[in-house]
Amino acid sequence: MNEIVRVNTRTGTITKHEVTSEEARWGGRYLIAKVLLREVPPTCDPLGRFNKLIITPGLLGDTIVTTAGKFSVGGKSPLTGGVKESNAGGEAGKQIARLGIKAVILEDQPIHSQAHLLTLTANAMTLAPCAELKGKEVSETFATLRERRGPKVGILCVGPAGEMKLAGAGVAVTDAQDIQVRYAARGGLGAVMGSKGIKAIVIDDSEAAPARAFDAGLLRETSKQFAQTILDDPKTENRHKFGTPAILAAANALGLLPTRSFRTGAFEHADAISGEQVAEVIAARGGDGQSGTTCLRGCVIQCSNIFPDPSGKKTVASIQYENIALLGSNCGIGDLDGIAELNDLCNQVGVDTMEIGAAIGVAMDAGLIPFGDAKAAADLIRQIGLGTPLGRILGSGAVIAGKVLGVSRVPAIKGQGIPGYDPRALKGNGVTYVTSPMGADHTAGNAFETARTVNPLGKEKQVENSRRLQVRAAILDSMGICLFTRPPFVKHPEFFATFLKARYGWDVTYADVQRLGIDCLATEREFNQRAGVSEEFFDMPEFMRDEPLAPHQSVYDLSLEDMQQIWNVELPAGVF
Amino acid sequence: MNEIVRVNTRTGTITKHEVTSEEARWGGRYLIAKVLLREVPPTCDPLGRFNKLIITPGLLGDTIVTTAGKFSVGGKSPLTGGVKESNAGGEAGKQIARLGIKAVILEDQPIHSQAHLLTLTANAMTLAPCAELKGKEVSETFATLRERRGPKVGILCVGPAGEMKLAGAGVAVTDAQDIQVRYAARGGLGAVMGSKGIKAIVIDDSEAAPARAFDAGLLRETSKQFAQTILDDPKTENRHKFGTPAILAAANALGLLPTRSFRTGAFEHADAISGEQVAEVIAARGGDGQSGTTCLRGCVIQCSNIFPDPSGKKTVASIQYENIALLGSNCGIGDLDGIAELNDLCNQVGVDTMEIGAAIGVAMDAGLIPFGDAKAAADLIRQIGLGTPLGRILGSGAVIAGKVLGVSRVPAIKGQGIPGYDPRALKGNGVTYVTSPMGADHTAGNAFETARTVNPLGKEKQVENSRRLQVRAAILDSMGICLFTRPPFVKHPEFFATFLKARYGWDVTYADVQRLGIDCLATEREFNQRAGVSEEFFDMPEFMRDEPLAPHQSVYDLSLEDMQQIWNVELPAGVF
Repeated sequence: MNEIVRVNTRTGTITKHEVTSEEARWGGRYLIAKVLLREVPPTCDPLGRFNKLIITPGLLGDTIVTTAGKFSVGGKSPLTGGVKESNAGGEAGKQIARLGIKAVILEDQPIHSQAHLLTLTANAMTLAPCAELKGKEVSETFATLRERRGPKVGILCVGPAGEMKLAGAGVAVTDAQDIQVRYAARGGLGAVMGSKGIKAIVIDDSEAAPARAFDAGLLRETSKQFAQTILDDPKTENRHKFGTPAILAAANALGLLPTRSFRTGAFEHADAISGEQVAEVIAARGGDGQSGTTCLRGCVIQCSNIFPDPSGKKTVASIQYENIALLGSNCGIGDLDGIAELNDLCNQVGVDTMEIGAAIGVAMDAGLIPFGDAKAAADLIRQIGLGTPLGRILGSGAVIAGKVLGVSRVPAIKGQGIPGYDPRALKGNGVTYVTSPMGADHTAGNAFETARTVNPLGKEKQVENSRRLQVRAAILDSMGICLFTRPPFVKHPEFFATFLKARYGWDVTYADVQRLGIDCLATEREFNQRAGVSEEFFDMPEFMRDEPLAPHQSVYDLSLEDMQQIWNVELPAGVF
Repeated sequence: MNEIVRVNTRTGTITKHEVTSEEARWGGRYLIAKVLLREVPPTCDPLGRFNKLIITPGLLGDTIVTTAGKFSVGGKSPLTGGVKESNAGGEAGKQIARLGIKAVILEDQPIHSQAHLLTLTANAMTLAPCAELKGKEVSETFATLRERRGPKVGILCVGPAGEMKLAGAGVAVTDAQDIQVRYAARGGLGAVMGSKGIKAIVIDDSEAAPARAFDAGLLRETSKQFAQTILDDPKTENRHKFGTPAILAAANALGLLPTRSFRTGAFEHADAISGEQVAEVIAARGGDGQSGTTCLRGCVIQCSNIFPDPSGKKTVASIQYENIALLGSNCGIGDLDGIAELNDLCNQVGVDTMEIGAAIGVAMDAGLIPFGDAKAAADLIRQIGLGTPLGRILGSGAVIAGKVLGVSRVPAIKGQGIPGYDPRALKGNGVTYVTSPMGADHTAGNAFETARTVNPLGKEKQVENSRRLQVRAAILDSMGICLFTRPPFVKHPEFFATFLKARYGWDVTYADVQRLGIDCLATEREFNQRAGVSEEFFDMPEFMRDEPLAPHQSVYDLSLEDMQQIWNVELPAGVF
């Protein structure tokens, strides 16, 4: 991974440059922060020619470390107006890394909008029109390219929503078997890709040189211990059996499950949409259904699934907690088949399930369709793909939907819809939503996992806790490793330094790794500050400070001033 | 004018307080800036309960000074996210002033949205439901209230767009004879009024005490000289004969007339929509048609008109330059009857003609309807009134329309559509659009009038010139006097100090008046800075730095850094 590929989408020129010694230390989220601050004018139009779309594996992207291979997509977000990094599993990230590419950067934009296909192989990089893919849904795009390029290439693409430059659009990626559609979903990066006129990217690593490591033995040995630490943790088994929806019952019990556009924190049909229920339905229906699958090869957690319809035919893969929370309970929908269909529709038209779930909740609040009506909700998502005016409104995300539909009560922070944790009942997440450079984001420092040690309803320790979690997220997202590797992170942080040493030969300690995470956040915050979207301007939505949330009747009561102190407090020594 | 009326729209409580000695010095735009900074959290939701809608006559609102009586409507703008002051003629402002009211402030918001009517008389202030007016167009609302309250009351109202809280909505006001619909149009303040659940305000000054002045003789004498200075200026005669469209031919000749969504600066049908043509058509058709009418009693300029259809029946009053530029040439429409109809439709549904003209231009750019199609454009405006998804998109203004329709090329700055002067060919206006706390605004410091002394295509003197014009606008908008009183302002600035002395007994000089204007702008800028919308974050739209504008092939080339120096340069002594 020592080359950066730049694609000028206006001229069609593709160049490849060896990384500098400084750039060599960047990867994933960290690279995005650094490149954005260096190269993109912070106040530029996110869908204009000065924004860049950056696709980059993490620092461990070409290693055998379990879960490594997650990759980051980044740019200035059309939703938040600030820095955005969104990462995904799937196989494409590994393949980019195996081609020796540290980052692919899409620059400028075509004068006349046209669908183009970017192809990267070990020996060639080409950009060619692909009119035949224009407007195609995601699975059809994958299938067409698969037919053309065989079963092994990695593919990224946008759906019609991205082509239409709707701010709720994500970037889709294939998994190893073309069963799942994975997404770098958040922040509207699909719209940025669409604005560059790139419909899809094919990565063919078949002729790539074998991945190198400075000390392969050390890498192998540490990876083994790393994986074992994950497997030894009881949560891993739970995630494997029930997938990410494993937490739904607890979220409901804690009263933080978004329900009917965040009107309550508990849903009367929670049992019908829980992780246990997902697993039961999959087991009972058989057919394509499967629990405990991987999103990328070599993962020992295996929290994905294939959710089948009553006849056993796949509806969607994988159905996950955030999707169920936002498209399900948040829309008053308590029926897994209905939710699975909505999830698949989002995947096909190419939008973020969370942003669109929040937007549909807003539309339901506006009285456009009733809460609980899965069929009507499905029609709305189809309209996004068709580009009807209403579809475009919803495809633009919750904030725009609220503005256009006359709804002030919008669950969003910094322009981005709040994910599946109501901050009134999980206050640490409120701190993260407000202070993270990413806006309301469930992967930027999620306090759900610490709900047992930090009272989720109290004000105490939320700020410190969020900071710790934000730094950890920044580190993992820069390594290209899953957030579910928390057990070794907490117990053996030294593994991360060892990984970097084994892969690159760097003489680093965990303190250096920590500094990387802190610098990543500082760089992102600087970009946001220059872009005019620093945390000082975006508080919790007003209704969350006003409306008590059942069942705990809690309001959000950490002040903006207290939350803003997050970066001023001295960092504690040791792991976080 | 020594009382402030506060209406709590949640509880229905109305209170009246005497002004403090500090507040006594405020009026119009200046009062809005001061109250907003003191009372409204800068980062609040513009359509939420913490924003306030402020209605305030200028400092000379209850005097006989010609053009005095223009009044200001203000609040945090849903379009720009910053301070907004929008003023209008009509009779209501004078009537508020005659009731001794310095400002009416609508606070908080109702829990359940419902149309309410606020009535202010000398002896009573009431707030009552008016379900019968809900959803009614503007002229019908005026007519219903007129029938109920007689021919003399002043009326403010919002149309359906304001009730729907669309960010392109304005606040409408009656003139003396119910012929014209005047508008505090810009910045979406109609949506703020709608968010407070207030459909209309009736002002009955029939039992008000006669207006007082500290020195009535001095006021009368100075007013006479003031009026005479206006009448002596050749531009006044021109404005009287041709109305504000008098400048259209010159705007076209200078190549700054927005044409087809700001693609060129000259329009091949300019002759057919010029001020001369407006006057000719009015004269030829007779009937209701009339040139040279007033928007408020006592104005010696008389630049309004009544534009009739071919049968002589009124289509709209008054048709003005900005409306013709944005709804006409900007939409490729070169037919006065078509434009007049669009103008009337905007007045009826309750939206800003400029914002909606810019938004329709964006929709035309997106290919929704062809440039030049007045019938299709009329249908779009009707859709705003009906609240269809597409209508709501356009009613939300040009920026939202661009985001939802996938158009990056949006002529707007700080969220607000650019008025009828393309800044590439009138660079001083570019400075004003970028640096004014109001965003893209034609009344906040319009360099058109100085196009003969400052080369509109050059970079020289634009920043200084804009500052001078911005300070003057702030002064006039705080006095409640028309911008067309420029001749005495330039020749006899001392009149303004004399007016304040005659009205209030204040011992002030013109330097004090100037300080008021400067302080007004500084206060507004401070609010915007705290709101996160200071000028450092909003540059010219990218396409205006990229796309040369025909016929001069000029791009906008003043740097943001240079423009930001506007408040740092030492102020020259003397008048500006």
